[in-house]
Amino acid sequence: MKKINVGLIGFGTVGSGVVKILRERKSVLAAKIDSEINIKKICDQDIHSKRNINIDRQLLTTNADEIINDPQIDIVVELIGGIHPAKEFIIESLKKGKSVVTANKAVLAEYGRELFALAADRGKSIYFEASVGAGIPIIKSLREGLVANRFKGVFGIVNGTSNFVLSQMSTQNRSFQECLKEAKAKGYAESNPSLDIEGMDSAHKLILLTYLCFGKFVAPDDVFVEGITRVSLADVNYAKEMGFEIKLLAIAKREGDELEVRVHPTFLSENHLLSSVSGVNNAIYVSSDLAGELLFYGPGAGQLCAASAVVSDLVDLTQGIKAGLFRPTLNIVEDATIKKLRKIEDFESKYYLRFTVVDKPGVLAKISGILGKFGISIASVSQKERFKAQVVPVVVITHEAKEKNLRQALAMIDRLDAIKEKTVAIRIEEV
Amino acid sequence: MKKINVGLIGFGTVGSGVVKILRERKSVLAAKIDSEINIKKICDQDIHSKRNINIDRQLLTTNADEIINDPQIDIVVELIGGIHPAKEFIIESLKKGKSVVTANKAVLAEYGRELFALAADRGKSIYFEASVGAGIPIIKSLREGLVANRFKGVFGIVNGTSNFVLSQMSTQNRSFQECLKEAKAKGYAESNPSLDIEGMDSAHKLILLTYLCFGKFVAPDDVFVEGITRVSLADVNYAKEMGFEIKLLAIAKREGDELEVRVHPTFLSENHLLSSVSGVNNAIYVSSDLAGELLFYGPGAGQLCAASAVVSDLVDLTQGIKAGLFRPTLNIVEDATIKKLRKIEDFESKYYLRFTVVDKPGVLAKISGILGKFGISIASVSQKERFKAQVVPVVVITHEAKEKNLRQALAMIDRLDAIKEKTVAIRIEEV
Repeated sequence: MKKINVGLIGFGTVGSGVVKILRERKSVLAAKIDSEINIKKICDQDIHSKRNINIDRQLLTTNADEIINDPQIDIVVELIGGIHPAKEFIIESLKKGKSVVTANKAVLAEYGRELFALAADRGKSIYFEASVGAGIPIIKSLREGLVANRFKGVFGIVNGTSNFVLSQMSTQNRSFQECLKEAKAKGYAESNPSLDIEGMDSAHKLILLTYLCFGKFVAPDDVFVEGITRVSLADVNYAKEMGFEIKLLAIAKREGDELEVRVHPTFLSENHLLSSVSGVNNAIYVSSDLAGELLFYGPGAGQLCAASAVVSDLVDLTQGIKAGLFRPTLNIVEDATIKKLRKIEDFESKYYLRFTVVDKPGVLAKISGILGKFGISIASVSQKERFKAQVVPVVVITHEAKEKNLRQALAMIDRLDAIKEKTVAIRIEEV
Repeated sequence: MKKINVGLIGFGTVGSGVVKILRERKSVLAAKIDSEINIKKICDQDIHSKRNINIDRQLLTTNADEIINDPQIDIVVELIGGIHPAKEFIIESLKKGKSVVTANKAVLAEYGRELFALAADRGKSIYFEASVGAGIPIIKSLREGLVANRFKGVFGIVNGTSNFVLSQMSTQNRSFQECLKEAKAKGYAESNPSLDIEGMDSAHKLILLTYLCFGKFVAPDDVFVEGITRVSLADVNYAKEMGFEIKLLAIAKREGDELEVRVHPTFLSENHLLSSVSGVNNAIYVSSDLAGELLFYGPGAGQLCAASAVVSDLVDLTQGIKAGLFRPTLNIVEDATIKKLRKIEDFESKYYLRFTVVDKPGVLAKISGILGKFGISIASVSQKERFKAQVVPVVVITHEAKEKNLRQALAMIDRLDAIKEKTVAIRIEEV
């Protein structure tokens, strides 16, 4: 039986999960693939902490070069996360003729273009199933299962922390801060949760989904990103009143021959399947021209979920290496029907707007006048409370409006004396 | 560029979809796989009807042997459906050293054990992504994406016709017969829809899902199958009142070291994602030990959906053949922790029971007395209307009860004078 040697860099939560699975499922995996996946070396800065797993100490090293320079190692699994030295480890591994498995969305989003090009140049592969949606086989599904499809759009709930906070606000009627605190207490949010709740983690994953669906590698700066920190309980409740849920969506969608790539809180119809995705779960909704509208759902994080994906990548690579394939992965091909990225200013959307106004005659007329001036027409208005001369919320749903026009209109409206807080604007997406 | 020759047997809806996709996506597919998938011959009984696709008439034949005996053909795609002669074509193709792609759940469910064994024996593969969930890459996901997982259960809405009928009953408040008529009018049901609404189509697909998840090939006779023909609008509405939807579920689940394999109408909590799957869509909910609870959703039928899956199978096989792999597929390995199939009599479930009784004193006492005698305890009772001495429905929700006990109890209850119709019993599944 062919033995494939693997070097693991990063022996943290996911890394020890991978070792555990490969050990516990050794015989069944061998029977499935007619090969043995052998962990030959494990590198971590900390090789002394206990990890609930018995490991031959000979396997451990603090020096990644012992993996990267070992000619007997076929595959390097990078699970340290972050940009440096993960990027350098991946580059050196590829240069030494190894394929790479990683769960690192940040380094792939930032440097994927150069890393994938290097892999192709060296005839090696980078597998990254665990980087989006943890154990959900979304990358395999997009790349292989839907290989013949042209995509219209991909809409993902890809950050469990944000989804947990928004679901809790919606179901428990509690504030953003309270729900974030709960997420931290439950271990769903890190002590510094900004990468999650500010949307950057979702943006990283969206860059990978966009690459898979459209063959375009979008730079992080070209992704419009807005997190959930400004979503108030009031907005969540008004949304529900009107039959919507608010979700942090990562969206890449085709508009004619342009592509929009954006992450932001979104009003979604309560009847949409994505609205039923609660807690720390993830889901990716895909609109394709042949297979139709598909949804892939599952836990968005967790030791064994991510490790499950890493092991499936190892199996795929093993099959390829065993067969002597030049590159086992399918090539990613640019969708030639898409000519360019749409600029943020040109995005068009319906909007939920919440104005905080002093309730006196003529305010609504002023607001609607300014909106009209910028070509924004109103689909519905409701004034939530009425207390003369006091500050009250006014909720407006618009028809399709250009982002640029909306921004200009809101800038003007927010300068009115009667407007007492910065107006809240949330996009309504008809997925 | 390596050219892989394909012979297509069955030039109907899906077959012409496959030809269309391979033609329209020729260059992008070639770029993705560094190979050309070439349709060398197409066999159909009818080679004269127009199919909205221009085809070189030289490609057409009515004689399948021209494909099966052509040594230049690497892959045979069987899309004629049904048992005979599909089974014989698959066997002959494998014997002639070809791999096979099929969308034929019936022949695989009935003869899969022998067909897969023959393929393995000949070092060839049978790919069948289109046979369950059309374009949803569920087979690839279970087999490859979740390769390291041990499964607890799989719960599928895998028959679009039945799901359409049940969704329409629920949302339109119309009878089974009316909704079935609508399904026929819309082309969602065949003129003889019994294979769909009696549950056999779901059972065929369930046999394949069971094989993929647990490595056991269950005989059709060992699957408990109950269709939706006896689900009344009253039951659908009572279900909704209590916070449930009725879905036709195909279930394979582990109970200790036993496996239950069954298809039947099921009360599902309205909050479960499967309850939100409406119309002709399909969804497969998977409970796995590493990747957790996953859902795969999409259209359950359609020319291009199924053809999308067939083409992804062709791509996988092409990659394998190009690499000279003995067999590109992963082996299916029996889950050794499962010792046997659970007998139907031993199934345990909560039940929804609807008794049709003459409303007179003491009837409920008699019913609950008999249930109690068989160890079935009642979680709730509600008498829906009250008209003295008239026939009224009494709805009971039970705690967990053994199928055998329930059957005996209902047989006795249905013999009571006060019971005016056969009692309706629907399982409640806590997925």
